[in-house]
Amino acid sequence: MKLRRLWFAIGAAWGLSLSGVAIAQEDQVTAITAAQQRTVERLQAAALNSDHAYGIVESLVTEVGPRLAASEAEARAREWAVAMLRANGLSNVRIEPFTIPYWDALREEAYIVSTPGAQPMVAAALGGSPSTPPDGLEAEVVRFADLAALEAASNATVAGRIVFIDEPMVRTQDGAGYGAAVRKRGRCAPVAQSRGALGCIIRSVGTDPHRFAHQGGSSRQPEGVSLPAMAISPADADVLARLVARGPTRVRMLIEADIRENAPSGNVIAEIRGRERPEEIVLLAAHLDSWDMGQGAIDDGAGVAIITAAARLIRELPQRPRRTIRILLAGSEENGVHGGAAYARAHANENHVVALESDFGAGRVFALRTRFAASAAPHARALHRALAPLGILSSTTPAFGGADIGDLAEAGTPVADLAQDGLDYFDYHHTPNDTLAAIDPAALRQNVAAWATFVYLAADNDWRFRAE
Amino acid sequence: MKLRRLWFAIGAAWGLSLSGVAIAQEDQVTAITAAQQRTVERLQAAALNSDHAYGIVESLVTEVGPRLAASEAEARAREWAVAMLRANGLSNVRIEPFTIPYWDALREEAYIVSTPGAQPMVAAALGGSPSTPPDGLEAEVVRFADLAALEAASNATVAGRIVFIDEPMVRTQDGAGYGAAVRKRGRCAPVAQSRGALGCIIRSVGTDPHRFAHQGGSSRQPEGVSLPAMAISPADADVLARLVARGPTRVRMLIEADIRENAPSGNVIAEIRGRERPEEIVLLAAHLDSWDMGQGAIDDGAGVAIITAAARLIRELPQRPRRTIRILLAGSEENGVHGGAAYARAHANENHVVALESDFGAGRVFALRTRFAASAAPHARALHRALAPLGILSSTTPAFGGADIGDLAEAGTPVADLAQDGLDYFDYHHTPNDTLAAIDPAALRQNVAAWATFVYLAADNDWRFRAE
Repeated sequence: MKLRRLWFAIGAAWGLSLSGVAIAQEDQVTAITAAQQRTVERLQAAALNSDHAYGIVESLVTEVGPRLAASEAEARAREWAVAMLRANGLSNVRIEPFTIPYWDALREEAYIVSTPGAQPMVAAALGGSPSTPPDGLEAEVVRFADLAALEAASNATVAGRIVFIDEPMVRTQDGAGYGAAVRKRGRCAPVAQSRGALGCIIRSVGTDPHRFAHQGGSSRQPEGVSLPAMAISPADADVLARLVARGPTRVRMLIEADIRENAPSGNVIAEIRGRERPEEIVLLAAHLDSWDMGQGAIDDGAGVAIITAAARLIRELPQRPRRTIRILLAGSEENGVHGGAAYARAHANENHVVALESDFGAGRVFALRTRFAASAAPHARALHRALAPLGILSSTTPAFGGADIGDLAEAGTPVADLAQDGLDYFDYHHTPNDTLAAIDPAALRQNVAAWATFVYLAADNDWRFRAE
Repeated sequence: MKLRRLWFAIGAAWGLSLSGVAIAQEDQVTAITAAQQRTVERLQAAALNSDHAYGIVESLVTEVGPRLAASEAEARAREWAVAMLRANGLSNVRIEPFTIPYWDALREEAYIVSTPGAQPMVAAALGGSPSTPPDGLEAEVVRFADLAALEAASNATVAGRIVFIDEPMVRTQDGAGYGAAVRKRGRCAPVAQSRGALGCIIRSVGTDPHRFAHQGGSSRQPEGVSLPAMAISPADADVLARLVARGPTRVRMLIEADIRENAPSGNVIAEIRGRERPEEIVLLAAHLDSWDMGQGAIDDGAGVAIITAAARLIRELPQRPRRTIRILLAGSEENGVHGGAAYARAHANENHVVALESDFGAGRVFALRTRFAASAAPHARALHRALAPLGILSSTTPAFGGADIGDLAEAGTPVADLAQDGLDYFDYHHTPNDTLAAIDPAALRQNVAAWATFVYLAADNDWRFRAE
């Protein structure tokens, strides 16, 4: 998951006085039919008794594994997805191709080379980083406690050195700690470069104590140039900080980046065509690509599995819902949300009545968040009433939406979040440790139950979530 | 820590009817003086209020880091140790050099290369493994649930393939699960080779679910030849097992081993000379080398720190104990207990009254185990009585001793264990995740208190632990 947009979206939502569900018309709840209520109960029972979603993510990590944006592995993931979506009874399964700038790190190594303390570090090149010279880039390290300290530093402190931003991340349930900590990942290289630095190293953006470096994108100067940039594991950040406190410390960074233009990626799309209002679309999104040190199990194999398993349960009902349910498995999310942008360009004129994304791991859903027109609050309450038996609260925090539906949301599409418990999400996020072992099958089942509930009710009614 | 000897030692101890403390003369407890009792209380209070040991291991992982047997880093560790032991007030600090066969892996990679499932694995070459051809070794995988299944397999099943032993490890407090699981690490290559296999892969010997491969030694055929051998992470073992169950699966192993004869290693030795019986030695051992993917914090920086900090507290007493306290920081333990063997050869004729080793991480001491003559049971009880306030039980299980004092123990030197809680030891053991973050400072303090108590009483009395 790429959360850069979350804080923008929340800020925009508050600023525009869009509402969370609890603000207006507190007492009104849109009624659902007795048949719909029975269907909801049947969907939830089926979801809570099935490991079908777990089987999907197990298949993805086993038969494809990591799938870097626009790589050959991502192409295999698309073929896997087409077969998997068809096997789950979905229709109109297709690939919508696009091209992107490709980036991969063939080598990504970092060493403390001065004594005392000469030792290798566990490091990951940040997405978009240029290569170093073939033998690496060696310089003295200057440490900053956080990004603000780097921003406040004089050029003389930084010039000719490797900048090290040692800022930690706060563990939170909703991912707010990520929004605060991830800024150093995007900003280290351009800010350090503007001060005359030679390279950039950050303490990994993560909450775990384990010896993993967390991958993730960096950013560039407006003119497109950048510094070599890496993340190091927390244990290595600790060692480096202690050595810098003892005296001058030199580090060698070595990155060999494979950078290509116009590399092939694509979105995979599938549908359950609505029986009465097929032009009205309930959009369910997740992303198919992953960073490549891990297996992409929680980011975002879990999302792929949750939304597919939920759609499959609805597909198996005696009759299809009134509206079309569409699944978007976006490509190339991690390195720039290219799939979401391509989808929004291609489908801007269609009628998306509501959009949701599952891209925050496999933790239990604990809250429903919406970004609906105030007039839709009774529908939100009806949705929450149906979700409540799954242990789900309603929240006054406006929905984020999701990276891959960000362009749609900015253009006014109503969005909702089935907000997941992410207390441990950033222990695994973008590391080699993002494996099937990080997924709790019981929590995955509860996710499927929540998604099936929301999507069925949103698709089987004529509720409007935008301002009329 | 290398536990191959543990099970031999326990077996031998039971076989010879040596006793744990609780077997004979249950009521007798050797008396200590009131002054000794006050000293014990002072030592314990000082230990429990000091992070001196934590500072030692922090210094080692920061200023040296990983230190593979006979590497340049291990030489730096010896220099570090000499300075550190002198700074802690110890005497006769010296290096006793020896040479060993050197082994290091310059490359250690493994890939699933067949489809479906083509993906890289997280792998570590096993110590002593030969190199593969420069482009690697590729073959179909044959999986065995455990070593016994491989041993029972026909040559036709195995010949021309890469053997994969998928045996898991049981988590236990005392490390017994390791003794059972580690056999596959030593035996995979020679057994697979005898069946005509081309290579050997094991599920890592460890208890964690994280994406780390666990390093460790392998073994060879009697004539000294061997197969390329690797350990893979549990997540990769899971993927490989599922793929093999789906159909024929091919793997490529790539190992580039650096193998040299007569590489320089050495032991570091230091003493507190006894004030009355300097020729009688209480020996405290730990090892200085480590595997090189981690920092060697729990294996065995913790042991180095615990025994040094305990000796320092005793050194700071108003008068030195009667007997000599000697610290052995052994070199080259991990790849064959070479330092312990060299020490035993050089010092066989000295009078070691008792020997102990700290090489099971940094968990709290939960039991005193001894391998003393039955006549020494009252002394063991006196030691336990002094340790009990630290939350330490006595145990009827005979002491292991430790790898580096194994030759001394086999030759009859009495040994004791300050047995540590190792429930999570094999989560970190021999992985990149063996870092300072795995050490609980409070548990480390309790270890120092226990060691200071035992060592002071053993050195300040004339107790005999062998049969008279």
